[in-house]
Amino acid sequence: MIVVMRTDATPEQIQHVIQLVQQLGMKAHPIYGTERTVIAAIGSKRDEYRQSLASSPGVDSVVPILAPYKVASLEVKRERTVVRVGPLWVGNSHLGIIAGPCSVESEEQTLATARAVKAAGATALRGGAFKPRTSPYSFQGLKEDGLKILATARAETGLPIVTEVMAATDVELVASYADLLQIGARNMQNYRLLEEAGQSGKPVLLKRGPAATLEELLLAAEYILNTGNQQVILCERGIRTFETHTRYTLPLASVPWLHQHTHLPIIVDPSHGTGHTALVPDMAAAAVAAGADGLIIEVHPNPETALSDGYQSLTFQQFAETMDLVRRVAEAVGKQINAPEPAEAICLP
Amino acid sequence: MIVVMRTDATPEQIQHVIQLVQQLGMKAHPIYGTERTVIAAIGSKRDEYRQSLASSPGVDSVVPILAPYKVASLEVKRERTVVRVGPLWVGNSHLGIIAGPCSVESEEQTLATARAVKAAGATALRGGAFKPRTSPYSFQGLKEDGLKILATARAETGLPIVTEVMAATDVELVASYADLLQIGARNMQNYRLLEEAGQSGKPVLLKRGPAATLEELLLAAEYILNTGNQQVILCERGIRTFETHTRYTLPLASVPWLHQHTHLPIIVDPSHGTGHTALVPDMAAAAVAAGADGLIIEVHPNPETALSDGYQSLTFQQFAETMDLVRRVAEAVGKQINAPEPAEAICLP
Amino acid sequence: MIVVMRTDATPEQIQHVIQLVQQLGMKAHPIYGTERTVIAAIGSKRDEYRQSLASSPGVDSVVPILAPYKVASLEVKRERTVVRVGPLWVGNSHLGIIAGPCSVESEEQTLATARAVKAAGATALRGGAFKPRTSPYSFQGLKEDGLKILATARAETGLPIVTEVMAATDVELVASYADLLQIGARNMQNYRLLEEAGQSGKPVLLKRGPAATLEELLLAAEYILNTGNQQVILCERGIRTFETHTRYTLPLASVPWLHQHTHLPIIVDPSHGTGHTALVPDMAAAAVAAGADGLIIEVHPNPETALSDGYQSLTFQQFAETMDLVRRVAEAVGKQINAPEPAEAICLP
Amino acid sequence: MIVVMRTDATPEQIQHVIQLVQQLGMKAHPIYGTERTVIAAIGSKRDEYRQSLASSPGVDSVVPILAPYKVASLEVKRERTVVRVGPLWVGNSHLGIIAGPCSVESEEQTLATARAVKAAGATALRGGAFKPRTSPYSFQGLKEDGLKILATARAETGLPIVTEVMAATDVELVASYADLLQIGARNMQNYRLLEEAGQSGKPVLLKRGPAATLEELLLAAEYILNTGNQQVILCERGIRTFETHTRYTLPLASVPWLHQHTHLPIIVDPSHGTGHTALVPDMAAAAVAAGADGLIIEVHPNPETALSDGYQSLTFQQFAETMDLVRRVAEAVGKQINAPEPAEAICLP
Repeated sequence: MIVVMRTDATPEQIQHVIQLVQQLGMKAHPIYGTERTVIAAIGSKRDEYRQSLASSPGVDSVVPILAPYKVASLEVKRERTVVRVGPLWVGNSHLGIIAGPCSVESEEQTLATARAVKAAGATALRGGAFKPRTSPYSFQGLKEDGLKILATARAETGLPIVTEVMAATDVELVASYADLLQIGARNMQNYRLLEEAGQSGKPVLLKRGPAATLEELLLAAEYILNTGNQQVILCERGIRTFETHTRYTLPLASVPWLHQHTHLPIIVDPSHGTGHTALVPDMAAAAVAAGADGLIIEVHPNPETALSDGYQSLTFQQFAETMDLVRRVAEAVGKQINAPEPAEAICLP
Repeated sequence: MIVVMRTDATPEQIQHVIQLVQQLGMKAHPIYGTERTVIAAIGSKRDEYRQSLASSPGVDSVVPILAPYKVASLEVKRERTVVRVGPLWVGNSHLGIIAGPCSVESEEQTLATARAVKAAGATALRGGAFKPRTSPYSFQGLKEDGLKILATARAETGLPIVTEVMAATDVELVASYADLLQIGARNMQNYRLLEEAGQSGKPVLLKRGPAATLEELLLAAEYILNTGNQQVILCERGIRTFETHTRYTLPLASVPWLHQHTHLPIIVDPSHGTGHTALVPDMAAAAVAAGADGLIIEVHPNPETALSDGYQSLTFQQFAETMDLVRRVAEAVGKQINAPEPAEAICLP
Repeated sequence: MIVVMRTDATPEQIQHVIQLVQQLGMKAHPIYGTERTVIAAIGSKRDEYRQSLASSPGVDSVVPILAPYKVASLEVKRERTVVRVGPLWVGNSHLGIIAGPCSVESEEQTLATARAVKAAGATALRGGAFKPRTSPYSFQGLKEDGLKILATARAETGLPIVTEVMAATDVELVASYADLLQIGARNMQNYRLLEEAGQSGKPVLLKRGPAATLEELLLAAEYILNTGNQQVILCERGIRTFETHTRYTLPLASVPWLHQHTHLPIIVDPSHGTGHTALVPDMAAAAVAAGADGLIIEVHPNPETALSDGYQSLTFQQFAETMDLVRRVAEAVGKQINAPEPAEAICLP
Repeated sequence: MIVVMRTDATPEQIQHVIQLVQQLGMKAHPIYGTERTVIAAIGSKRDEYRQSLASSPGVDSVVPILAPYKVASLEVKRERTVVRVGPLWVGNSHLGIIAGPCSVESEEQTLATARAVKAAGATALRGGAFKPRTSPYSFQGLKEDGLKILATARAETGLPIVTEVMAATDVELVASYADLLQIGARNMQNYRLLEEAGQSGKPVLLKRGPAATLEELLLAAEYILNTGNQQVILCERGIRTFETHTRYTLPLASVPWLHQHTHLPIIVDPSHGTGHTALVPDMAAAAVAAGADGLIIEVHPNPETALSDGYQSLTFQQFAETMDLVRRVAEAVGKQINAPEPAEAICLP
């Protein structure tokens, strides 16, 4: 890290910082500039030191040099991680397509959707059984009954199941049904949940929080990776900005940025990222062109009666058309969607 | 809610929406304007309907009219809630001052700080035992040992203890030591935790998430209030914006806005809200002038060696000076800080 | 517009608003709901009324129903506007590619770049002669000498010239050289400049301000359209958000949103939108997949010595590779880049 | 500046950067860390170098050390600037209160307001004659007729006039009437206007753009200061964030931050900063507690019929009450509002 001294820092203050840096186990390397002195501190392992040094007298600011994430870093592991769960392949040239309803509402609704998205080319089924809702008065999900419905849909279609787990105490239950555990945006920094999900041994889909920086997303991934579970998929689903014409702002540049800094695959959620059905197809195409390793899309038999997220769900027909568009763009950028394999042959983890 | 139709909506589409509104149990009231038709839907209780109606053919948008929060609303309860925990009074004309270290690091550090902040006029002691840290490589807190140290400090000073609980499974343990349970900004929408904290019966300090709207903050408070626990204090601690000269942006207008929409007291955290020691005193004063019902401030015996948040902690001397400033401003706006009562007489809940 | 009354509004306050609405020349249509009264005001033409009504006693808020932009609206003109300047076609299925250096630094640099971008398939040359720089100590551009160099490059390559005009008083001079006048992001709401540029009769490229909503962008376009100049191209170039890994956040969902609300073509600037050379190619591809009608990209013979924006400029080789990628994605989404026509045949306006 | 090399940078790349730094006239000082090399470049005067070095092969990023603003910096001029225009004193312990209507609508409205705000203790009169309006269909101001009305109000009350100038070509006209030229938020980076305003010799009130960083605000101020005009007042008026309950987010921490980095006085606009009459009084008080050197507040005889900004204007009564509150807080933090001097004695510049 680089400790930048104030222009009016005294020689005593500079000397004090040099000693403090050394006491903290680092090598201090002062550079005397024309207007101010900066002190390079070499060998630091801990971010805390940066924070405390900033409060020493005469210090203007402390600039970190090393990225705080480690295991997730492309500098540590040069080979890209590919996550495979049956027909769902995510990473490298493989584009995983996860589709399904926001909430599991009934067996009929879920099965119909599973069949439709499989027919259109999806490689996994999403569906919420435990729903984190902004309002306590909103539909909270069918809970274990919802998980059972998802299992039925998997048995029929062979599509692996992606579903959200909201609490550390639910991980065991949800993991006994799900093929891929989803950590929602609101829980990106629920560290106890991250650790439990990691320890379940299931692959984990980690969604970016709407106010999280990409560094914070990678540090949240480290909580999972540190349990020894390397099967982590990152998901960009939009951030909070001043824009109001979309529900969130979908910053697709995070896809190439992440590809240049981490080996983990990154998928995009154009449904939450826009909040409007009419914007989903173009943004799905844009995400793939930006290099995304997959998509997660909300699909519903009849959005105008959906119990959640109707305004951003695609109908079966809209999803099929979106898949045609996505396939053409995928080919243009050298990616392919794996056709679902027959249910008999499926190798779920 | 108001359903706004597109200018090119057909009479059939308008009729379909009217019927759908009626099927959902609401009264439909169409208004035919010069350029477009809008349909007022009266009697709605559920936000879901708004979401699904937005996806009906010919609908441009759906505008909610009623605020989604209920129990927290000033329209429901006109009398302001005052939370009292021993010498800490928060609400109405009472200004509660919660001060102490970011993390409990040792008994010596915690006791010294407790004595200093009490002497300067604080009415409660803060200190983190369970620390939610962005990086898994940062100091994670002393856990139960930290809680014991806080209890020791309370025994000596009579100051009630405010400390964070990070997980639903920790609520029982933390509540057995703490006087006021703090829900951190990262966990504002950790609904299981909110419910557990509510059920503990302890007063709860709910910090605003850095990307949360004020409506979302009030809806999170409803999760607690719905358990029957009415002792909720809201805390503004800054939001994520494009500004980088401060750690977060502290939007003090949320204080009067909340006072005009909820009966719950609202305090301000100028330490996290700015992220710089040098900005804390002026923003503490500004918060009180804006009408805040209290402050939560980080204080450390020696910020340059703190294990967390050193760059935003005040020294004992700085805190004492800040309290002098705060007291003068409090008087100017008609608020008072309750002097801590003797330890013997303390009525902890 | 819809005037939402407070729940505690008195009958007198409701009556007062109804009368005020009528005095302002609108029809008042009150709707008495279960919890509050709302008053639909029909026939309003002026946004001012919305603002003033909001301050009437008993009013909670006023919700606009009609979009404030008119001439730019797709509801007014259903046919998409196509802007053509010689080989540059922008709109509908035509993808315009504007490329060149941030600043015109020398004839050599500009000519070399013009040749290279033409060879790679660009259909117009960009280059700044008048540079709006954040700091008064930065290079401010070659001014008229720069315009002359651009004219030389046009004479040789046949590429039309796109260059920024910073001040109303410069419009005549710049328009005497340029084929397409660029209004920079900082000047999106410099209304005098918008009017002058409109009156020049030249096509105008209007960049979105980094804090502007899409409504504000369309209203700024109306200032130009109202001069009778219909040749306006909108440009998304990124907004200010909390993200720091990119210079701005490039919200590509604005492309389909604008296509669904305006007939004007929209292009994307992935150079300013990301601020990093390494992110430009993928975001150029993503913009085209999102439906953009063109791109504006910074290219420099030697970015590491550029006088401005070196960190986001492509080399000639990088630009050629980006064009290959863009062409494949354009084909996938049904768009085509017009090959530059021979210089002899060029029909500049 | 500090050039941070990638961890996989080759010795040749490091050597190339060292040479490039030297060619650019700086001293290169490499530091070989445990994981990567950083190169301190000493003696840089130009921000351009930072930008171009960032695109050299093997470079990860370039970190600036020196602040880019100079003349505005507190490090350059330790003595705080006080701007005085007749009874209006702004800076140090002097609190300037600028109040009046958003727009000058008529002589009657303006004179009534001028008398009322003077009686309540304001020390200057604001009023817009040239109005930059988001929509071309909104009221655009009375232009020179408005300036004449303001002059009449000054003649009667002795209050100096603060009014906006929107275009470089209007500076001479507006400066012939105004005592303090206001540069609006939309024009903060209209550099030609800044230079013209500076050259007028009149004091300039520079409002922060809603997406501008504080560094950009200070650099905009440098454009004025560089004309030799030292009479610059900065104004915080809110930034664009995801918050929608207020028109803008008013980040009061910018007040102490600016006081710690510049000698220029800073005032606050709680009217635009909140956009709601009901929030203005508390935020006016908070601004003063945060250390602001003044306030600019919108006041209107009858906000519900105002031609602009009615929803955020105070009535005369509300303004008088706000002044009482402001006076008490000012006293608490050691500031004073100068009582308007008799009109005879006024020393306008």
